[in-house]
Amino acid sequence: MEQTVKVAVYGVTGYTGLELLRALLLHPVFEVTALVSSSHAGKTLKEVFPFFGPTYLADFPLTEEPREEFELAFLCLPHEVSLELVPKLLEEGKRVVDLSAAYRLKDASLYPEYYGFTHPYPELLSQAVYGLPELYREQIKDARLVANPGCYPTAALLALAPLAKEGLLNEPPAVVGLSGVSGAGRKPRQEYHFPEMAQDFFPYAVEKHRHVPEMEQVLSELSGGALNLRFTPTVLPSSRGMVCIAHARIPKVELRELYEAFYDGEPFVSVVNEPPHAKWAAGTNHCFIYPHYDGRSSTAVVISAIDNLGKGASLQALQNANVMFNLDEDEGLYQTPCVP
Amino acid sequence: MEQTVKVAVYGVTGYTGLELLRALLLHPVFEVTALVSSSHAGKTLKEVFPFFGPTYLADFPLTEEPREEFELAFLCLPHEVSLELVPKLLEEGKRVVDLSAAYRLKDASLYPEYYGFTHPYPELLSQAVYGLPELYREQIKDARLVANPGCYPTAALLALAPLAKEGLLNEPPAVVGLSGVSGAGRKPRQEYHFPEMAQDFFPYAVEKHRHVPEMEQVLSELSGGALNLRFTPTVLPSSRGMVCIAHARIPKVELRELYEAFYDGEPFVSVVNEPPHAKWAAGTNHCFIYPHYDGRSSTAVVISAIDNLGKGASLQALQNANVMFNLDEDEGLYQTPCVP
Amino acid sequence: MEQTVKVAVYGVTGYTGLELLRALLLHPVFEVTALVSSSHAGKTLKEVFPFFGPTYLADFPLTEEPREEFELAFLCLPHEVSLELVPKLLEEGKRVVDLSAAYRLKDASLYPEYYGFTHPYPELLSQAVYGLPELYREQIKDARLVANPGCYPTAALLALAPLAKEGLLNEPPAVVGLSGVSGAGRKPRQEYHFPEMAQDFFPYAVEKHRHVPEMEQVLSELSGGALNLRFTPTVLPSSRGMVCIAHARIPKVELRELYEAFYDGEPFVSVVNEPPHAKWAAGTNHCFIYPHYDGRSSTAVVISAIDNLGKGASLQALQNANVMFNLDEDEGLYQTPCVP
Amino acid sequence: MEQTVKVAVYGVTGYTGLELLRALLLHPVFEVTALVSSSHAGKTLKEVFPFFGPTYLADFPLTEEPREEFELAFLCLPHEVSLELVPKLLEEGKRVVDLSAAYRLKDASLYPEYYGFTHPYPELLSQAVYGLPELYREQIKDARLVANPGCYPTAALLALAPLAKEGLLNEPPAVVGLSGVSGAGRKPRQEYHFPEMAQDFFPYAVEKHRHVPEMEQVLSELSGGALNLRFTPTVLPSSRGMVCIAHARIPKVELRELYEAFYDGEPFVSVVNEPPHAKWAAGTNHCFIYPHYDGRSSTAVVISAIDNLGKGASLQALQNANVMFNLDEDEGLYQTPCVP
Repeated sequence: MEQTVKVAVYGVTGYTGLELLRALLLHPVFEVTALVSSSHAGKTLKEVFPFFGPTYLADFPLTEEPREEFELAFLCLPHEVSLELVPKLLEEGKRVVDLSAAYRLKDASLYPEYYGFTHPYPELLSQAVYGLPELYREQIKDARLVANPGCYPTAALLALAPLAKEGLLNEPPAVVGLSGVSGAGRKPRQEYHFPEMAQDFFPYAVEKHRHVPEMEQVLSELSGGALNLRFTPTVLPSSRGMVCIAHARIPKVELRELYEAFYDGEPFVSVVNEPPHAKWAAGTNHCFIYPHYDGRSSTAVVISAIDNLGKGASLQALQNANVMFNLDEDEGLYQTPCVP
Repeated sequence: MEQTVKVAVYGVTGYTGLELLRALLLHPVFEVTALVSSSHAGKTLKEVFPFFGPTYLADFPLTEEPREEFELAFLCLPHEVSLELVPKLLEEGKRVVDLSAAYRLKDASLYPEYYGFTHPYPELLSQAVYGLPELYREQIKDARLVANPGCYPTAALLALAPLAKEGLLNEPPAVVGLSGVSGAGRKPRQEYHFPEMAQDFFPYAVEKHRHVPEMEQVLSELSGGALNLRFTPTVLPSSRGMVCIAHARIPKVELRELYEAFYDGEPFVSVVNEPPHAKWAAGTNHCFIYPHYDGRSSTAVVISAIDNLGKGASLQALQNANVMFNLDEDEGLYQTPCVP
Repeated sequence: MEQTVKVAVYGVTGYTGLELLRALLLHPVFEVTALVSSSHAGKTLKEVFPFFGPTYLADFPLTEEPREEFELAFLCLPHEVSLELVPKLLEEGKRVVDLSAAYRLKDASLYPEYYGFTHPYPELLSQAVYGLPELYREQIKDARLVANPGCYPTAALLALAPLAKEGLLNEPPAVVGLSGVSGAGRKPRQEYHFPEMAQDFFPYAVEKHRHVPEMEQVLSELSGGALNLRFTPTVLPSSRGMVCIAHARIPKVELRELYEAFYDGEPFVSVVNEPPHAKWAAGTNHCFIYPHYDGRSSTAVVISAIDNLGKGASLQALQNANVMFNLDEDEGLYQTPCVP
Repeated sequence: MEQTVKVAVYGVTGYTGLELLRALLLHPVFEVTALVSSSHAGKTLKEVFPFFGPTYLADFPLTEEPREEFELAFLCLPHEVSLELVPKLLEEGKRVVDLSAAYRLKDASLYPEYYGFTHPYPELLSQAVYGLPELYREQIKDARLVANPGCYPTAALLALAPLAKEGLLNEPPAVVGLSGVSGAGRKPRQEYHFPEMAQDFFPYAVEKHRHVPEMEQVLSELSGGALNLRFTPTVLPSSRGMVCIAHARIPKVELRELYEAFYDGEPFVSVVNEPPHAKWAAGTNHCFIYPHYDGRSSTAVVISAIDNLGKGASLQALQNANVMFNLDEDEGLYQTPCVP
């Protein structure tokens, strides 16, 4: 019989909270003891999401604060809310997986420019471990605070890490990120209103995107020198899914061998023989990567596919938690995509 | 430690086979020992569906015939193929869940009109148990052959059964069935080509639909007298999902109480307080039912929502198998929908 | 050389205003002299809708009030706003096509129940002509005020009018209306947020829908006696489009002949030989109708397809305006659907 | 009163033929005298596409060959069919707009590699004018044969032409092309079957795409030197629409001024202030371009949006025909997009 770890989920009514909950319902070790929601406190889970009616959490109350003890907190909250909550939870001795960007950047001076606030706890930034297990597994094991990566960074970093590590990124790579609409969150907005978003697609935040410093931080660390990156996010009419197309001008190398070696043994990364479909990863924690070297333009073209809410957010959070609690890394993460 | 039941899946590359496989991968008792496919024999599962690459069945071969012993066969096959295969499997002592319509009708004389063939084994029709556990659970337990219902019949029958049982259907009910496109199968067709089906929706088979005799057979049995039904299927631009809207002119009754009593204790039917969304059931074996009595027109309006591939096909097949093998009826069927 | 008629469009930034504007840009007689918008006054058309940038109205200002004289006003406004504006415009001698429901009902006593307000100008209700040209063409010609029908009533009434007129509707017909999401308006809402609405569909307002009294009013008038109707609206994941499926228990008649005779010569109604697709009517003012008599259940099944924003709203408004100004009824309404 | 030009449309049942016909129905000068279809000869237009029922061409016959004289032929045909038909039509004195790639490349030696055939009429390649009016308007005026560009080349070339012309493309640009599914044609295929394509997106032909030599040919000509390009096409779940995201490492220049000057006076190109949406161009012949210089990575990021069937195919063909016959270049091309 396995142990039980009591967990609290903060911000359960947004898309990352919802996806996390879907996975936790199937997880044999993590036991939900709190569903925290400031917007829906006082309701039961079923009242907010009727499709949870048939589950054992149907009548579980959403509350302003946890009412029971717990060991691990998942924060599916806005950056500004995580920012203040994290120190409190750490002080109380909880371990934390924060899905916001509040503790992702090592350089506190980037927060005002990219997030519009001055970071009040810069000393915590160095304690936070960036939660990409393929790169930081050892640190995650003992981490008190894991800063769970953004969806674009997860997809882009898994695509570019082998090149960075090999020191091949001498020019800024150009990355196009394609994302399903759930990446923009659950709050309705005009441009994501169904009648407008259906049959539409468009790049956005072309001049500056918040995820860029996070990508550059990791790539620079891997390559051992400051590294810039060109990134163009694009939204398209799918609920979920993410594909990153990374271009990097590099000398000719055996790309496939490089990638297969780099990701050898990784449970959630597959190097594949054809460009992956977004749908292959839908609802899962998996990342599919297709590396191709284009000799005509001396360009490495690396394509990665994940679920923006899965490996790009909540399921990666669960993977991190598995690592933190020394469980099988794929515990509760066996699902295959719901195709078609 | 639980027992293991060896199963063979016939016709694994169609949508019902695919959905069944997705669920079997998470089932603790049923062990896949054969993936039969006439169209893709010789390939591995991963070669046909790359998204199964990360699973333990990735390199499992698709074969023309099973190569190992098994106890239970799931037939995800065209009617004509099931028709001939079922007697052979039964003779070999296997138990069978047939997802086709080959053994659903009790009256063999309906096959020429609705399916275009004369049934060669009419004696088997009486042995077959119609696989709607909410109505035929006891017979399913001991059945050698379960004829798994069609998707429209599942949704319509669950919506109308309480009225039929109560003897209230004195006029033919009018049922509109709304279905995602996967109900039409995996084979590409002009009208379901993405550029045409996107933003389109339309009724079809308005003059005659194959699922009508199946519905009338069960409703007549429940009500104790011959009963006709008016049915209009409609396809709309969703991959999955099914909603049935049934109208029946009946005297005023306490509909909600009737439905709650009828489905009391059922693990996969929920009587709900608002019209259900197709998406609540996506990827699950659940059925949500909303009954409403419209006094102005003396009409019972009953709305049911299922996943056409879930409760409407493959997951119901698994539910039937659980019943047949005396397992927990919801074993391996715990998933909640992948929302959003 | 044709005359010019100066028109003002009130409420140009909603979906009906937008669709009307799209058609007016191609109309040779109606000249736009005012684009009224309370929410976006002060901006140019192009600033609100960049895709109008290439048109001659690109830099036309949106204003709180018209700044020039005009003869005809199209009101694409909320009911409550139309309610007060109509009398003022009529007093100033304008002719008005009102796309709201403010003047559709003849019986003022229905407004509190269905729209939540007491009608302040009940005497104007009798002056208003219901703008369904196929039924009220002669009155529309001279009307000062045309109350343009709702989308569901247009589709349902065109489907049921021949039966009502023939006195065949002795039982309340059961109508299922299927609508694209734009029918719910342009304002973003949680359930129509793209990630949730994609792959979803669901009935709503099952207990009471505002469009019912409008349908019953016309059907009663046609049939010469009070007539109830059962109506279940359903929203599905398409931006546009509407299909109504009407069931009516009637004695056997030659349905096709009845419908072809009833709509003989109508420029915008086609009686067709197969169930129509929503997409056949997309972006047009056309209505396709498929009548079928089901002998097994003694039910007339009549299916109609329109564009909810086209014949269901703005293009019908233009058709009405053509009739009012004695123009060719199809002037500016020649477009075929943008397929695929 | 304007003249009439008789035209024949070859291949009218594919998507480019269909879109061309939709526009020709509104064109005041081009008169359709032949609808050629090998697959549907013997049927009327309405029988193949019921939504053309309300038009004056409803009962126009589809024929194997034209039956009347005509001046201009639009070829919406497979490459191999156009290849042989073009010389015959030219010999008969017709003018031709060929929407296939059969005569797009100047260098005949590229056909075996990219199209799998040896070009039988290489001498005609030099006579053919590449039908991108923004670059080759003068030659189009007198052309006997216009080779209408592909959709990706149209979008990519309009995005990159100003940079090429200015001599700024010293490194191969990296272009990601995003396309609606109609770009793959009307023939159903497994991966574009609605249940699979909905909610999916994926790059394809990453190693080699047929449109690359066409792009390189024009860019090399503009820049005055051989120029390579990296191109990654991607399909996403929209019926129509195309966005190209081009990255080029260049020295800092005033991009916006450059683009505005280059496209000054062009009726179908708008340089805009925000990343364009695919939907802005849907159903139109318009191209929206957003140029941005990213100083951090010394990269010009240029985003263009067109309708792949509009400016990317059939409506551009009509624009070319307008130029060839000295008509207003925007004759019959006034439509705005059908939004939402």
